[in-house]
Amino acid sequence: SEQGAPLSPGTTIGILGGGQLGRMLAMAAARLGLRAHIYDPSGDPPAAQVAAHHTEAAYDDTEALARFAAAVDVVTFEFENVPAPTAAALAAQTAVRPNPRALEIAQDRVLEKSFLNDLGIATAPWAEIGERAALDAALSQIAPPAVLKTRRFGYDGKGQARLTGLDDAGWAWETIGKAPAVLEGFVDFRAEISVIAVRGLNGRVVCYDPGLNEHREGILHRTTVPAPLSRKIAQDAVLIAGRIVNALDYVGTIGVELFVTPQGLLVNEIAPRVHNSGHWTIEACLVDQFENHIRAVAGWPLGDGARHSDAVMENLIGEEALAWLNLAAEPAGFHLYGKDTVRAGRKMGHITRLSPRRA
Amino acid sequence: SEQGAPLSPGTTIGILGGGQLGRMLAMAAARLGLRAHIYDPSGDPPAAQVAAHHTEAAYDDTEALARFAAAVDVVTFEFENVPAPTAAALAAQTAVRPNPRALEIAQDRVLEKSFLNDLGIATAPWAEIGERAALDAALSQIAPPAVLKTRRFGYDGKGQARLTGLDDAGWAWETIGKAPAVLEGFVDFRAEISVIAVRGLNGRVVCYDPGLNEHREGILHRTTVPAPLSRKIAQDAVLIAGRIVNALDYVGTIGVELFVTPQGLLVNEIAPRVHNSGHWTIEACLVDQFENHIRAVAGWPLGDGARHSDAVMENLIGEEALAWLNLAAEPAGFHLYGKDTVRAGRKMGHITRLSPRRA
Repeated sequence: SEQGAPLSPGTTIGILGGGQLGRMLAMAAARLGLRAHIYDPSGDPPAAQVAAHHTEAAYDDTEALARFAAAVDVVTFEFENVPAPTAAALAAQTAVRPNPRALEIAQDRVLEKSFLNDLGIATAPWAEIGERAALDAALSQIAPPAVLKTRRFGYDGKGQARLTGLDDAGWAWETIGKAPAVLEGFVDFRAEISVIAVRGLNGRVVCYDPGLNEHREGILHRTTVPAPLSRKIAQDAVLIAGRIVNALDYVGTIGVELFVTPQGLLVNEIAPRVHNSGHWTIEACLVDQFENHIRAVAGWPLGDGARHSDAVMENLIGEEALAWLNLAAEPAGFHLYGKDTVRAGRKMGHITRLSPRRA
Repeated sequence: SEQGAPLSPGTTIGILGGGQLGRMLAMAAARLGLRAHIYDPSGDPPAAQVAAHHTEAAYDDTEALARFAAAVDVVTFEFENVPAPTAAALAAQTAVRPNPRALEIAQDRVLEKSFLNDLGIATAPWAEIGERAALDAALSQIAPPAVLKTRRFGYDGKGQARLTGLDDAGWAWETIGKAPAVLEGFVDFRAEISVIAVRGLNGRVVCYDPGLNEHREGILHRTTVPAPLSRKIAQDAVLIAGRIVNALDYVGTIGVELFVTPQGLLVNEIAPRVHNSGHWTIEACLVDQFENHIRAVAGWPLGDGARHSDAVMENLIGEEALAWLNLAAEPAGFHLYGKDTVRAGRKMGHITRLSPRRA
């Protein structure tokens, strides 16, 4: 594992990306007496409202990146689509945690699935699609229903086309913009779950209990913890997450999305960052996914991931946040992200309802 | 009660004072999608590291105060010694919550004790001391042991002198600087407890369970919740706090310190702000004292003050914070306040250890 002395109180965590995940990371850093420095191209990103410093610059602004790297004690990120040259430029100057290899793998579905399969971790059947002819060939092996996904930079259901029959091939290829892609066999899953895992600088791993995820229009709607799983399946999910972070020599919080199928667990994708499906940890655990990410990248001991309560987290998407006054009156953990403009599909906040822990 | 529409998400809470209480208030505001604007004379106060805005100006800078009042949607404060002219200047321009009368009473031990006694709330026996002769006269009514305290601006045991006999009168009068004072009869208390109460803009009151406070060298060392009290005493303490906030038409969080004596409860003092002995609410309650203060001053519905766990909070004073790496490794809620310089008696952070709720 990567070694290093823990960062002292008063040092600065550089965070690429100033959205709600960066905002919650900055607040977690502040709890521990650490400063946050947000790097984000926009003028008033949510995270800058709670951070000691904000560099407003583009991700390819090499001079701004150099100043940022010099001003902070470690760099981390809130989104997996950090451009590879950005990560490389920063890594040449300071510690970047998690390491850029996790970004490289998570940004490319071919690398991601190969990495998982090489570890002996099952995924949906898949094929690399570089051109239209490859799609036709793949459809003879992976029968529809299937999903065509761009190889890079998919997010919340964008860049995807669902094929219900062989006739959809041409339409699907057009829909994703004829970009390099993968074809994935459709998985008849009983549930989608996720495991939020954290790996410290010393290699210690902490996992939160798996949550059940429900989506609406391709966006996470609700996470329920604990997920209704057998003890064995829950343990298998945690072990898979542990194998992934160890293989990546990972430092920080990761989100691993899995499908529960009659044949066992498949990994859907990995997100090398704090994860929307881990927001429930804020209220239901003593140390949440954000603080544990900060602890990890700062080289601090990880906090306990034990859950003291059961939890149901729901995202507030677009106009759902207009009901803020009623939502704030509920006996629940209520969060808004400081975004001025309500837009359809935009994550505006979330609410977490607790109940006594049953099992 | 004061009326008013709730402040919308994105509006700004002005906070006088940028210490650790202002820091935790700013973070609570951010959770709710509100911005914080810190007013503090120093250049890099702890709260400014997590706030959207910071005005660095003196508390008697009338121009800066006017700009601050114009830039925020409501003003609150993290310390009770806000100068009266400062509060008045702000109140002339915008809403100040809690209202300045609570400051006036809390800043003056004579007003405070008269206010309490007029409500039928017991205090230690006390006498107003304006001059040396009054001290001698009072000592004939209130026999030593007794404590002489400056009438105004006491904090963490400063400005106090303990008299063990009549001979101490001259020394005590010198010690407190011959300032206007009160003499308090020494109370043979079994325990010091505090109640953290919150009153909303609509008059609704939420109280957290009383905590047992232990001091070292005049500074709070530990708060244990629940305090070991009979059901009746605990309820009486909460009712006293409720009577105080209603009589003050109070909006926000208040700390009420009480002595448990063989004759019943006495109020020691009231602090019209979030309170050190309420830090345990961060980990042990769904909505903590800081968020409920922000909810109150923003005119939002108050959050539930129910405690899901038992808690022991300990302050990290001065060099105690140097053990941060060991403390961070404990299964506990760990907080540092972003203060660069360790000084004797300085509150650097705190740690809260939880255990399952017993009763």
